[in-house]
Amino acid sequence: MGVLVSVPGLSSAAVPVTVVVPEVDPFAVMNVVGLLAFAVAGALKAAEAGLDVFGVSVLGVVTALGGGTTRDVLVDRLPASLAATWDMSVALVGVGLAIVLIHSIEGRVRDHPAFLTTDAVGLSAFAATGALVGVDAGVTSFGVVILATITAVGGGSIADILIGRVPVVLRDDFYATPAVVGGLGFLAARAVGAPTGVPSGLCAALVFSVRLLALRYDWRLPRV
Amino acid sequence: MGVLVSVPGLSSAAVPVTVVVPEVDPFAVMNVVGLLAFAVAGALKAAEAGLDVFGVSVLGVVTALGGGTTRDVLVDRLPASLAATWDMSVALVGVGLAIVLIHSIEGRVRDHPAFLTTDAVGLSAFAATGALVGVDAGVTSFGVVILATITAVGGGSIADILIGRVPVVLRDDFYATPAVVGGLGFLAARAVGAPTGVPSGLCAALVFSVRLLALRYDWRLPRV
Amino acid sequence: MGVLVSVPGLSSAAVPVTVVVPEVDPFAVMNVVGLLAFAVAGALKAAEAGLDVFGVSVLGVVTALGGGTTRDVLVDRLPASLAATWDMSVALVGVGLAIVLIHSIEGRVRDHPAFLTTDAVGLSAFAATGALVGVDAGVTSFGVVILATITAVGGGSIADILIGRVPVVLRDDFYATPAVVGGLGFLAARAVGAPTGVPSGLCAALVFSVRLLALRYDWRLPRV
Repeated sequence: MGVLVSVPGLSSAAVPVTVVVPEVDPFAVMNVVGLLAFAVAGALKAAEAGLDVFGVSVLGVVTALGGGTTRDVLVDRLPASLAATWDMSVALVGVGLAIVLIHSIEGRVRDHPAFLTTDAVGLSAFAATGALVGVDAGVTSFGVVILATITAVGGGSIADILIGRVPVVLRDDFYATPAVVGGLGFLAARAVGAPTGVPSGLCAALVFSVRLLALRYDWRLPRV
Repeated sequence: MGVLVSVPGLSSAAVPVTVVVPEVDPFAVMNVVGLLAFAVAGALKAAEAGLDVFGVSVLGVVTALGGGTTRDVLVDRLPASLAATWDMSVALVGVGLAIVLIHSIEGRVRDHPAFLTTDAVGLSAFAATGALVGVDAGVTSFGVVILATITAVGGGSIADILIGRVPVVLRDDFYATPAVVGGLGFLAARAVGAPTGVPSGLCAALVFSVRLLALRYDWRLPRV
Repeated sequence: MGVLVSVPGLSSAAVPVTVVVPEVDPFAVMNVVGLLAFAVAGALKAAEAGLDVFGVSVLGVVTALGGGTTRDVLVDRLPASLAATWDMSVALVGVGLAIVLIHSIEGRVRDHPAFLTTDAVGLSAFAATGALVGVDAGVTSFGVVILATITAVGGGSIADILIGRVPVVLRDDFYATPAVVGGLGFLAARAVGAPTGVPSGLCAALVFSVRLLALRYDWRLPRV
């Protein structure tokens, strides 16, 4: 979990001093960012839909944990949401944040920049976790892109279905598309041998940029 | 599966007589009770929604098997609904019961005490099975509560989504909340070392009481 | 993957000639047929629902891969949709076909014979794959019938839920019923020791016939 680094300048005389620089696990970082962002986004969506505090909490938690749980079930892992208390705790913190934030949002939540940006952050981070888990589980390159996409859009889609809406993934062309682009970026970075953390970072950056550009310029795919 | 008990008073002369007292498996009991209750509740719900006998059977079976199947998939087990004929058979008996019962229910099914009580029984028994499986699978305490809740509300939620309704778990504050309370009670009983059967019994009793009290006094959680 | 067959008439003098007759894997055949048919049916359904090219692709792919992925998750296998690029590629070919076909269909897609026949082909082929995987996974006879049914109706049901419709499995009595009949036929053929390929072929033939007869003569099950 850490790397021992010798820092010669800090060592006095013959005693070597070693400083533990924590090695950052790309999955852990992306996971926390995604959980927080999606818990906030899901809870805001639920509040807009007129649910009470319980419904808001359930929808926040489901949005945060849904994508990752689907991902873990698909690759035959005990879902992180059950195997550790961490995911659930982070999701509840996100719900709490949303309950504080909700009163400062004016107008339709789902068009508000704060909501859209938070949701895009969740999408980006979870696409990266899906790609990382896919590589770990030994799925094909196609499988990595699919897992990145399902992990990214899964939680929000389950939440939409629960409140009786057609999932955003079907209404908005550039909701799943950025995750597909991010998954491809992840594969490209791995193919050229990028060091740990770079593929997932590139993936998240691509998802985030494509999503925000699509929102800003109202991108649409052609009709059939 | 059984305990050999020597009953000295029954033995004549030198021949010891042993009577096999069946050891009751808490999971098996809760599972049968839950399957029956939810099959009845699901089928009644489907009949109210105007489905025909096939739709009524499907919805009854899905309500009965849905929560447990989700639970088993989450902890990486072959679902009991596929590994044994027992679950399916019990669910079909429940559907049969519901078809007999439906004509004696007057007024809106979903507000009828018979429906609400049956549904509360299913909720209680399945919360207990979820907690038991969670402990078996070695999930965290948080995971035990989540599994209890998902197992309890899973079947009914899938059924609601199939007939195009917002799941009751999102409409009614005290549908999932009793399961959460029951899961906590289960953990507390285990923590103090209660003998086999007590944690699950307490869990079911808590879920049932909280659910019926909430219905009786129309409990609601505060709005955000 | 092949069978060596000695063909004496083709051998000149003392040199025996052997011809490799490729042994057909029943699962592979049914899988490709089902993937293609359901990708077309799903994409047509999406186009009728007014989705754009991305939504059409997503719904086609989900309809094609949904049932098999659910089947694999239930029996604790890494889904074929992630473990191999084949399934996804075939599904995308099906989507392409549908985009070409859509303009030649007049009137309501969901009542068009081309749509109904394609959908029935998918239903038949996937029921067979479900039964085959069930036997492989060692589930009960009941489980084989359930897996055949879930695999057959799973993709279409997920697609219907995504576009906010009550799934056809609940609206039409003879959508899941043919799959149940096919599953029973599969078991019967295995019970009498039919050679490889016969049980799955019989299963598919039964599903297809019952489905088309039900559509032709507007069969319905009795109301409760």
